[in-house]
Formats: sequence, structure tokens, C-alpha cells
Amino acid sequence: MKTSLDCIPCFFRQALFAVRAATQDVAMHKELLDRVGSLLPDIPLDSSPPEIAVMVYGAVSEVTGLADPFRTIKQESTKKALALYPALKHRIQTSENPLLTAVRTAIAGNVIDFGANPSFELELEVDGLLQKPLGINHFEAFRDRLQASDWILYLGDNAGETVFDRLLIETMDKPTVYAVRDAPFINDATEEDAEMAGLSSVAQIVSSGCKAPGTILERCSDTFRKTFRKAPLIVSKGQGNYESLSEESGPLFHLLKVKCGVIAGILGAPEGSFVLMQASP
Amino acid sequence: MKTSLDCIPCFFRQALFAVRAATQDVAMHKELLDRVGSLLPDIPLDSSPPEIAVMVYGAVSEVTGLADPFRTIKQESTKKALALYPALKHRIQTSENPLLTAVRTAIAGNVIDFGANPSFELELEVDGLLQKPLGINHFEAFRDRLQASDWILYLGDNAGETVFDRLLIETMDKPTVYAVRDAPFINDATEEDAEMAGLSSVAQIVSSGCKAPGTILERCSDTFRKTFRKAPLIVSKGQGNYESLSEESGPLFHLLKVKCGVIAGILGAPEGSFVLMQASP
Repeated sequence: MKTSLDCIPCFFRQALFAVRAATQDVAMHKELLDRVGSLLPDIPLDSSPPEIAVMVYGAVSEVTGLADPFRTIKQESTKKALALYPALKHRIQTSENPLLTAVRTAIAGNVIDFGANPSFELELEVDGLLQKPLGINHFEAFRDRLQASDWILYLGDNAGETVFDRLLIETMDKPTVYAVRDAPFINDATEEDAEMAGLSSVAQIVSSGCKAPGTILERCSDTFRKTFRKAPLIVSKGQGNYESLSEESGPLFHLLKVKCGVIAGILGAPEGSFVLMQASP
Repeated sequence: MKTSLDCIPCFFRQALFAVRAATQDVAMHKELLDRVGSLLPDIPLDSSPPEIAVMVYGAVSEVTGLADPFRTIKQESTKKALALYPALKHRIQTSENPLLTAVRTAIAGNVIDFGANPSFELELEVDGLLQKPLGINHFEAFRDRLQASDWILYLGDNAGETVFDRLLIETMDKPTVYAVRDAPFINDATEEDAEMAGLSSVAQIVSSGCKAPGTILERCSDTFRKTFRKAPLIVSKGQGNYESLSEESGPLFHLLKVKCGVIAGILGAPEGSFVLMQASP
């Protein structure tokens, strides 16, 4: 998808969030916003939001001197998610429809702010999220495609959420390639984060080769592009992957929370809703 | 209050909203955002948000060549609000506590988007808003101050909302000076808009002399400042007036909806809540 002008205020919001995670120096916060402001004329609106996010987060690294400001936050999120793992696993295994529950769990993982919350509050939050109806629900097509596939390509999103992905991968129970970003962006999972979530015990972890908070195929490695093209089922997690793959067809299913009005307008699903959507085949 | 860095993404959102109301030319929309971006280094964060909004809306006028892009929208809003007037008047007159109902009505007027909605939907919306509890409720102090005052200074906010203000002014039933902006900003009411709402039949309409979307005393006329200093009761409507008068003491009551997290943090009231708050005396 192309970037909407409505994404621009949001880039400033994200830039502020990122620089605050990196440093408490308010002068640096202001410097970063000034720098993003000066980038605006160069922003190509025919690019997808993750492509532009690369410029914005590049500015964060330049201003703060930190390549991975979210590293500690990501590790904390993974630890907290791992603490939830046994209860979530039990819930999936004892549910009426384990695959559907695992899908909902994986989408719930896309939503949770592991930040300040203690584990028991997170458990309550997951409880609530699992009751949420899906705004777009292509579960039957997903289940059928899964049954017909002998392996899966799974596109990860955030650290912490990785643990919830692992539960879905275990439930799908097929050989899986788990793809992560090639470089740190915000709290997006890298190989290190996927390892920490225990994904190497259930999947082959690979880098997509993409140095952006999404999966921009032209920027991925040749190896990854080949994997993408031959995969019988691709599970894509989160809005960043959707934004970069929205025009792709194929055996591709998007699992995400609709986090803004721009995406809500494109998908025709309400802001805040959970979505399991098949790309046009 | 000083401007928070959190206000900066919001200035971009407002700029985009304003330029879209002024023109459908997408190239102009982008030009405006670029221009606001280039203004960032010059934004003095020790100023209040309405002072900075002057710069942002100045850029809107420069890019579009329109001094008052919201003029038609404001007139439509006032017409729609006038259509609600008889029902709202009847509701206030027949309520158990007409003054409190009129206060709630005036705050509800601060919320309504008259835009696309037909009148019967707006009436339903007001119905719902009048049930909302107040996040901060200094009603008794307000009622006592009103009883002790022989006239009132009322600081208006948006066009359309003006009609709701008129209902509160009629209910308070004391000689009233109704102050409006000296120049058009967004949908803020000017003298023309106040006239159209029928306020001249219940109050003396004056300009504050302030060419900003708020009441910045240093930028108001001498005459207005004198009126402000001698008023026995000042009713200030909306967040823009609050942002510019937050450090003022005196017989000043703020009626507003908390429209963002920055103000929620300052007031200690939840985002979205309605507030009737006495300034420190």
C-alpha cells in the first residue's frame, strides 16, 4: 500500500515514542522531531509506510547514537510473554477449537503492551482479547489451506508476540520457517528475539533480509524471496507486514489488529478489530 | 500551559484536517505538511499550543490562499445547532436542575461534530452526552459564584457550539459579555458566527482582540483585558481557551471536554471526560 498523508502525524508520534525509549534527554527528543520535519519533503508517498519508517528510525539512531534503542524492552517483553506460555498452552489444548484459539492467541500477541504490566494483569488482558470477535474472519479458508500444506512460512512481527506465534506454530504442527527482520526497528523481532522466545525448537528461524519494519520483497534477500514464492502457506503477522505485502496475492493470510484509520479504510474493518484475512489468491 | 512535544504530531493532524477542508488539491495538502515540518525548529515550546497553532494555521492560509477555509462549515454548523435549539431549550426548562442541565448542554456543544450528521442524529447524540458524568465537577462553587455575580464574561469557542452557549447564558440569566476570536481559526467562532447563533439577543458580543485559537491575554486588546480583570465571573469554553488561560487565577470556570492525553495528564481527568472546573481562586 502507498503511504497516506494521514500516516505523517503518526510518523511523528512513533518517532517521539522511539526517541523517548532511547533517551531521557528532552533536547534530543526535540532535535529528532525537527529532523523528521526536515525529512518530509523527501518522503515519497508512493512508498509503503514501512519504507518511510526506515527513514524515521534512521533519524532516531542518528540523533541518539543507538542502533537498537528497544533491545532491553524487547527482552523484557519476551520474558513476560514466556511467563504466560504455560497457561496459554493449556487454554489452547483444552479449547473446543484449538486452531481457532491459537489464531486468536497469536493476534492477541500483536496487541499486548508488555511494558509496565505485571504477568497476572497480562493474563487477564489476554482473557479479554480472546473473547473478541474477528472483524474479518477467513478461518475456514485458512484451515483448509493449512490442511493442504506440508510446510509454512510464518512472518514474525514484534518481540514478545513471538511467544504467541510459537503457540500457533505448535498448534499448526507442520514444518515452519519463521522469518524476522534483518535489523532492529522499534520492538520488531530479530533473530536474537526469536531465539529467546524458543522458536528455534519449533521452526527454522531465518532473516528476511529486509532492513525495514515490514516485509518489502524488493528489499529482501534472494533466498527469502524464493522461500516466499514457493511457500504453500504464508502467515503474515501485524500491520507492518500487511502494509508492505498488501498488494501480494498467493496463499497468504494476514493476522493483525487494525491499529489505525488508514488501514481500517483499506480493509473495510473497524479500527481496533482483529482480522484473519486471506489475500486474493 | 506550555506546549508538549506530544502536541507536535497533533499539529500535523490538525494542519491536514484544515487544508483538506480548504482544498481537494492533494499536492497542496502535502505542501502544507512539508511547510509545517520546516517550521518545527522555530516552534518555541515555552509557548502555549494556541500560540503555535497561529503559525500552523498561518501556513494553511499561505498555502491555500484562503483566510477562512472553514467559513461555510461554520455557517452550516450554526444552522444545524439552531435547529436543535427548541428541543434543547425545552429539555433545560423542564429538567430538575436547569442550571446543571444547561452546563452539560454547553459542554456537549464542545463535542459535537455537526459535519455530516442530520439533525435527528445530532439530537440523539446530545441525548447521550447529557447523561455523561463530569470528570471534574465544581458545580456548587460555580452556582454560588453565579448567584454572587451581577454580570458574566463568557469566552466562546466553536461555531455551532455558540448556540449551546446561548442556552447556558439564557439559563444563567445575567447581563453577559460574549467574547470571540478577532480572526478566523479553524471552526472557532468570530463575531459573525456569534451573531448568526442569535447571541446578540442575550449578550453583548465583543472581540477579545486575540488573533489565535484561544484567549492569550498578552495578545488581547486593552479593552478586553480590562473586562477580563474586572469580571465577577468568567466562563471559559473549550480546550483552546484552557490551554491559554491555564495559569490564570480568579473567578474563572473552565467548561470543556478533555480532548487529548496531554490535557488529561495536566487536569488529572480521563481523556474524553467532561469537566466543569474552577481555576485556583
